[in-house]
Amino acid sequence: MTILTKISSNKMFGGVQNVFAHDSKELGCSMKFAIFIPQECGYSKVPVIYWLSGLECNETNCIQKSGIQRYAAEYGIVIVCPDTSPRGLNLPGEKDSWDFGEGAGFYVDATETPWNKNYRMYSYVTSELIDVINANFPVIPGKQSIMGHSMGGHGALICALKNPNLYRSVSAFAPICNPSQGAWGKKALEGYLGAENKGLWPQWDATELVKSYSGPPIELFIDQGAADPFLTQLLPENLIDACKDTQIPAILQMREGYDHSYYYIATFIGKHVAYHAEYLCN
Amino acid sequence: MTILTKISSNKMFGGVQNVFAHDSKELGCSMKFAIFIPQECGYSKVPVIYWLSGLECNETNCIQKSGIQRYAAEYGIVIVCPDTSPRGLNLPGEKDSWDFGEGAGFYVDATETPWNKNYRMYSYVTSELIDVINANFPVIPGKQSIMGHSMGGHGALICALKNPNLYRSVSAFAPICNPSQGAWGKKALEGYLGAENKGLWPQWDATELVKSYSGPPIELFIDQGAADPFLTQLLPENLIDACKDTQIPAILQMREGYDHSYYYIATFIGKHVAYHAEYLCN
Repeated sequence: MTILTKISSNKMFGGVQNVFAHDSKELGCSMKFAIFIPQECGYSKVPVIYWLSGLECNETNCIQKSGIQRYAAEYGIVIVCPDTSPRGLNLPGEKDSWDFGEGAGFYVDATETPWNKNYRMYSYVTSELIDVINANFPVIPGKQSIMGHSMGGHGALICALKNPNLYRSVSAFAPICNPSQGAWGKKALEGYLGAENKGLWPQWDATELVKSYSGPPIELFIDQGAADPFLTQLLPENLIDACKDTQIPAILQMREGYDHSYYYIATFIGKHVAYHAEYLCN
Repeated sequence: MTILTKISSNKMFGGVQNVFAHDSKELGCSMKFAIFIPQECGYSKVPVIYWLSGLECNETNCIQKSGIQRYAAEYGIVIVCPDTSPRGLNLPGEKDSWDFGEGAGFYVDATETPWNKNYRMYSYVTSELIDVINANFPVIPGKQSIMGHSMGGHGALICALKNPNLYRSVSAFAPICNPSQGAWGKKALEGYLGAENKGLWPQWDATELVKSYSGPPIELFIDQGAADPFLTQLLPENLIDACKDTQIPAILQMREGYDHSYYYIATFIGKHVAYHAEYLCN
């Protein structure tokens, strides 16, 4: 039985925006997650969307800056936003970089020491967190989708591609689509999996996962600002090319003039919630 | 001629969310303000709403957390959010309190030393800032309204009550309605105006201004969370009683279960923009 500690609770759009902490077995530390519970949950179970945040973020960025709750309230969907890494472990080097270690778990299960014991964000997101949510909140088990931003967009894509039946739908804002080929991704995969273990990398790289995908039909909805200064890190074209080759349906929605920020996300997050609602609410 | 320095610029809801800095004559320091410019400004001038933030806030809180841009884009209205005090003056005691000095200008013109030279947020907001906006952005001079939160709600109310023809409409979230009677207000008025100068206080207190109001009809739209932990500081009932006595029309919209946070503001800010649009866009 997981014990949840309520960190904060604020009424919003008729529902409630909560933040909880719990002791994570996968990560070996206390973890926070935010959960928006719409008014409907007072009388029925509802679907849930998991949101994975980007580098340097935690459980609060999405709930403070995206405006997602308005749309979640409209459709009657729970939104869960976990933190982006284990915290407070005091591993050597854990706080040295903004793009590695704390705040940058990269949604993989690390194999390299000293990270392999705790940096297991993939297993946390796809298993432990779902169990915690299903056991403690009025959600319909299995009626779940996943989305994210940047590093979290990468996370959403690999979680869905590696578990074809787990999520009803997947979408991503400005995801790191081919981490083996970009600086952020290389740093993370080298650190968590090993520079010399390149054979492990493809199973944590959306573009490589698409190339070897053999599951049931799955559509990838990629949203990308055309003025994003990090395009050379994100490489959406590599993912789209791989999808074309393997006939996996992919939507690449380029947004003229938009950048990588939450101002961009806030503009289009309603369209993403509506997209997931098609899969979750019918 | 004011020189504006662009601090940031992000496309959002078809328009652009900018932050600028400029040298303020009233305040004797560099000041930042945020301005959302909707798409309409590409081909016509539009009305403007000024947003005043609360204690500890700056020019970014509203633009990051309220979701106001969605509604501003919908109605075609510019939103201007100034910082909440002068910054970087190094006055003695300026940074000692979270509720006085930097981040807490209280929208008054101070008379006490050492504040009286720079802490002139009232004149900045009602005069200098309007001139800067009118001279540099595609707004319709005079088609302007004002709103704010907490200390900024107090600011919006006194700016409107002291200048009956300046704003087309005024609204406030959880405003400090009667600062002479609450701890935050007393600290600010004592510090900026003098504990012994109580004769000056009523001209900076919305409830007192209502009692002596003799201008043209003006409606006050007050929004208040019923679960706000600071209700005994805010005292909306004092303002409403004064409005009844003087037959000034006031709307007090109590929101059951809502607190003092931006989660509350985000829920209802669309209704406030719609309210102001009735005065600005017809």
